[in-house]
Amino acid sequence: MRNGSEAAVEVTRRLAAYVVEARDEDIPGHVTHEAKRALLNWLGCAIGGSRHETVERALAAFAQFSGPAQASVLGRGERLDLLHAALLNGISSHVLDFDDTHHPTLIHPSGPVMAAALALCEREHGSGQAFLHAVILGIETSCRIGRAVFPSHYDAGWHITGTAGVFGAAAACGRLLGLNVQQMTWALGIAATQAAGLREMFGTMCKSLHPGRAAQNGLGAAFLARSGFTSSERALEASRGFAHVLASECDLSLVLDQLGERFELLSNTYKPFACGLVIHPVIDGCLRLRAQHDLKGPEIEAIHLSINPLVLELTGNKAPQRGLEGKFSVYHSAAVAVLHGAAGEAQYSDDVIRDPEVIALRQKVEVQSLAHIGNTAARVSIRLNDGRVLTEEVTRTIGSLEQPMSDTQLEEKTRALANGPLTPGATDRLIALCWSADLLEDSAILAQSSVPAP
Amino acid sequence: MRNGSEAAVEVTRRLAAYVVEARDEDIPGHVTHEAKRALLNWLGCAIGGSRHETVERALAAFAQFSGPAQASVLGRGERLDLLHAALLNGISSHVLDFDDTHHPTLIHPSGPVMAAALALCEREHGSGQAFLHAVILGIETSCRIGRAVFPSHYDAGWHITGTAGVFGAAAACGRLLGLNVQQMTWALGIAATQAAGLREMFGTMCKSLHPGRAAQNGLGAAFLARSGFTSSERALEASRGFAHVLASECDLSLVLDQLGERFELLSNTYKPFACGLVIHPVIDGCLRLRAQHDLKGPEIEAIHLSINPLVLELTGNKAPQRGLEGKFSVYHSAAVAVLHGAAGEAQYSDDVIRDPEVIALRQKVEVQSLAHIGNTAARVSIRLNDGRVLTEEVTRTIGSLEQPMSDTQLEEKTRALANGPLTPGATDRLIALCWSADLLEDSAILAQSSVPAP
Repeated sequence: MRNGSEAAVEVTRRLAAYVVEARDEDIPGHVTHEAKRALLNWLGCAIGGSRHETVERALAAFAQFSGPAQASVLGRGERLDLLHAALLNGISSHVLDFDDTHHPTLIHPSGPVMAAALALCEREHGSGQAFLHAVILGIETSCRIGRAVFPSHYDAGWHITGTAGVFGAAAACGRLLGLNVQQMTWALGIAATQAAGLREMFGTMCKSLHPGRAAQNGLGAAFLARSGFTSSERALEASRGFAHVLASECDLSLVLDQLGERFELLSNTYKPFACGLVIHPVIDGCLRLRAQHDLKGPEIEAIHLSINPLVLELTGNKAPQRGLEGKFSVYHSAAVAVLHGAAGEAQYSDDVIRDPEVIALRQKVEVQSLAHIGNTAARVSIRLNDGRVLTEEVTRTIGSLEQPMSDTQLEEKTRALANGPLTPGATDRLIALCWSADLLEDSAILAQSSVPAP
Repeated sequence: MRNGSEAAVEVTRRLAAYVVEARDEDIPGHVTHEAKRALLNWLGCAIGGSRHETVERALAAFAQFSGPAQASVLGRGERLDLLHAALLNGISSHVLDFDDTHHPTLIHPSGPVMAAALALCEREHGSGQAFLHAVILGIETSCRIGRAVFPSHYDAGWHITGTAGVFGAAAACGRLLGLNVQQMTWALGIAATQAAGLREMFGTMCKSLHPGRAAQNGLGAAFLARSGFTSSERALEASRGFAHVLASECDLSLVLDQLGERFELLSNTYKPFACGLVIHPVIDGCLRLRAQHDLKGPEIEAIHLSINPLVLELTGNKAPQRGLEGKFSVYHSAAVAVLHGAAGEAQYSDDVIRDPEVIALRQKVEVQSLAHIGNTAARVSIRLNDGRVLTEEVTRTIGSLEQPMSDTQLEEKTRALANGPLTPGATDRLIALCWSADLLEDSAILAQSSVPAP
């Protein structure tokens, strides 16, 4: 332990007090703007993922148990009770592996927090500013708790998006419900004791279940706490609390460090490609080489990748059989980037996974892990049949913290995802709503505008 | 690791295959009888706990989200959807800390499994035999997984009733839903990735939330799996699976050892006293001394307890403020046993906790932890004002595996718990139903008979 429990006094309560007491006017404008970017990106992912079979199967299992029609399943027609809507939207927003990533912790922060808060606002009709600020505080909560236990928690096998996400959902919803400090402390405790999700599930439908359950359980934790349901008041810092039980090393001072001054949302990143983030530098390099040299598949003898060791650890699947597995295959991703000049949802369909031309090229991908290569970097060398070797060095991949997607690029990404479930006109209106979200009198319109017209 | 993952081949799938394929006629009669005892005890606890403020607050939070009226909240009038009924009955059955205990693992096995299976059967109308056998297989599943990770998992801070319980609920419900082996393997995986619950929550309402959520999430896992929702197929044994992530040492061979031949349910015990099991030998000793010597409070100078070290670790609260905390206080328990000659629900009310006479006597309790004293043993010495010292040595406390409660004692315990929410006549009818549960054409009558007449 870098920081024993004796030094970590009242971490849970002090975090709870901040979430309850933070004033709207103290949240900087550029942080609010980043929340709009996150909202735009997240809505695109949720709408774009809404027809995925993972969502269909979850609905098939749970619709029969839903309570009153309180909130929308984004991108679809169904209306479910708040808890089930939060679950389903948490699932759909992660199912494409296209949602945002908090760079220091690998948390996908928006899923749990926004799925819970948006469902709640659809029923409670809070203002757009209240919604955005609750989301900012929720993301702050998830990411700070994540920082306190990263990397040992993640290395041990926990899917940190689920385990840290439930706290953020509880915090955002607790804020929207107007919990007092005592209740918010309980809400964080109730969240802590439901923190779950194993990395072993990567490549299966359960990966998306994690942010869904985090949203649902965090929302439920806020309602339980409001009803006076008690928990430990030292859920984060106690010797048998979240940090010490779920991580071999932790630094709880990071939960409170510069609280209200430094915002974790400013370390948030958005993916240009529909796959595991660690593969992005490779795709970026492949796309650049393809564009520069007008590459065709048959002329390629081998693709050699020099990458950070984490890439193979997370995405070392050489022979993916299904679309979901392809998202965790650096081999497949390099092949489609070269062949298709793209790595969007289409490149991770089952059909493309089984395309003989793609299979042939991904078998020509060789990988070398090098510890000195950073996780936004890669070196791609393509050897052609004529003996030429083309090399591209990527130091800051597009979508990284140093090279963020622009607002316009985020709009384009959202448009590509939402068109289909929504009409192009409806998508444009939704995009406009996101940029003016802080001015909305009733934030329910965000969810209402994310479903197809009846 | 006592048993590396290389030796643990297909543990999850083989356990799933057993749960799917076990034949009714291969389950021995005495195991079925033990399931009836567990059912009787569990129904009593759930009905007896049904008016607890923990249950009231959970209902206040969640009733607004319930779906169709599919299943009963035991001991009460409300009917909720299956998932919420499982949650509430899992909570109420544990809230008095009076439910059963699987001796080798400290799991309270019936809560998650029965709450889930009973709710399902109330809607699906399975036979009594199908219900009992599903419960047996569910408890087998929880307890075997618990054995594989005990004690390191428990020592690390996990509330094993929640973490292992979700598997049992998934297995029992999966059996009732007729899952095939592939689906059952997924159900166990979906359970694994929701395993949660921290011992830090002991003494708060969240302790009871754990079996409730385990029931709800296990039931949900079975429905998800039936809908084709995929998970890892190596959720137990994979290097990032349940056992290795949530325990520093594990022996996965215990999951499959003598499967179908040895039944964990036969290591189940039932509490005569309404508090932490580890305190029972102390209470037993105090009750014996009181009965032998007709003790009165004022004549007592000191109560000296020699106990297993685990007792203080779990129940060392010297000055409990509320009833729930009293259940984790060996000091309070010894005092009420001597003063009241009992340690039932009444002795753990807030009023008794604050009774000056009780407070005075519990301040006279001295404790000595001795490693050589077993966890069903204790030595109680009472020093009187007149100088006499009365000593009782307890080696096998009532309710232990070696000295189990008789069927009649279980009936009496259930009667005391259920009378109130139910009429005495209704309680007697319910007790009779439990003893003939394997003959019931429609097991729904068990739940229907556990609620007050309208």
